[in-house]
Amino acid sequence: MTVVITAFERSPDGGKGLARDTRVRWALEEAGQTYEVRLVSFSAMKQPAHLRLHPFGQIPTYEEGDLTLFETGAIVLHLAQRHAGLLPSDANARARAISWMFAALNTVEPPILDLTIAKFQEGDKPWANERLPLVEDRIRHRLVQLSARLGDAAWLDGAFSAGDLMMVSVLLRLRPSGILDEFPGLFAYVARGEARPAYQRAFAAQWAINAAKPEAG
Amino acid sequence: MTVVITAFERSPDGGKGLARDTRVRWALEEAGQTYEVRLVSFSAMKQPAHLRLHPFGQIPTYEEGDLTLFETGAIVLHLAQRHAGLLPSDANARARAISWMFAALNTVEPPILDLTIAKFQEGDKPWANERLPLVEDRIRHRLVQLSARLGDAAWLDGAFSAGDLMMVSVLLRLRPSGILDEFPGLFAYVARGEARPAYQRAFAAQWAINAAKPEAG
Repeated sequence: MTVVITAFERSPDGGKGLARDTRVRWALEEAGQTYEVRLVSFSAMKQPAHLRLHPFGQIPTYEEGDLTLFETGAIVLHLAQRHAGLLPSDANARARAISWMFAALNTVEPPILDLTIAKFQEGDKPWANERLPLVEDRIRHRLVQLSARLGDAAWLDGAFSAGDLMMVSVLLRLRPSGILDEFPGLFAYVARGEARPAYQRAFAAQWAINAAKPEAG
Repeated sequence: MTVVITAFERSPDGGKGLARDTRVRWALEEAGQTYEVRLVSFSAMKQPAHLRLHPFGQIPTYEEGDLTLFETGAIVLHLAQRHAGLLPSDANARARAISWMFAALNTVEPPILDLTIAKFQEGDKPWANERLPLVEDRIRHRLVQLSARLGDAAWLDGAFSAGDLMMVSVLLRLRPSGILDEFPGLFAYVARGEARPAYQRAFAAQWAINAAKPEAG
């Protein structure tokens, strides 16, 4: 059954791989699944045809026969539960890997999203400079804890899993800020994720679409 | 096998049911599972014994024999996958219900958490009053979309599911702000969730612990 995902016609990051379709592409590559991509413009994302697929008017979406999914976490979990390569087979280890997926999306990503908001939506506000250190410190608070848990391990809980895929993807958003450089263990963890052939293929695929296009305003 | 969850010794909300253990209690009640609760003080949550269970020093955690889980989303999903009552049996409907769990936690909750941060962590900052409407409008943006999708339906996708459990729980955090009152459809949706006997039992259980205690600073 053909899998079709959606991605930005022109990614706001100009192809740095930070748009969420890269996470889904990475999961598809880890699972060895082929897929097609339908590109969506910013204006089309807000139209009824796309809102039927994604109630919040975002990308990516996932279509496979009769099934339509939205939310990157749900799509990656769907793939991980149906194909080898993204979750351990032991039931307990599997549940723990899923804990890390939720931790990435609900505990680590929100303060990182706040940094994006502070820079791009509130960067011109009178409080922007004074508030920024507070936002960054909330990120550091989480990274200290994450770093302590990871320790010297290669991945968060045994072998590479969808939990690592999601955590690495979330941490990658921090690269432009320089905050990741303050945590050598996490910096190396992210580099391990990026070095995976499946990530490389996913990155290259989104780069091929975005590289030739100027960055969106 | 005995299930043990952790909860605040004294919830910051004084028993309003907004602490995340209520979500897990609700899922356990929907699934008809008994459980025990270990209360944890704010200082104990930051100690190694608790950090072994929860790397980010939060509640709730979930222990069942050899298995320890953290992250409310992962715990609720674990329960939903193992017991009837929280996910449809059809595979596609099940995947869609899980999409709503992730949507609640990664798309709808982050702007709502920002409101909590704006009020309780930045309420004394010079920008607090001027910035608040921006934070509230980011919530409204999501609620307009959510409200449009819900329409006149009782639940987000067919029968009540873990997706609704999580979305209602996330929206409940908005009640003190008054923003929920601006969306009658969502207000009624939340009320439907609260009216479920399983929610009532979960709420009562956390209330019994917190009601007699003064609110934490």
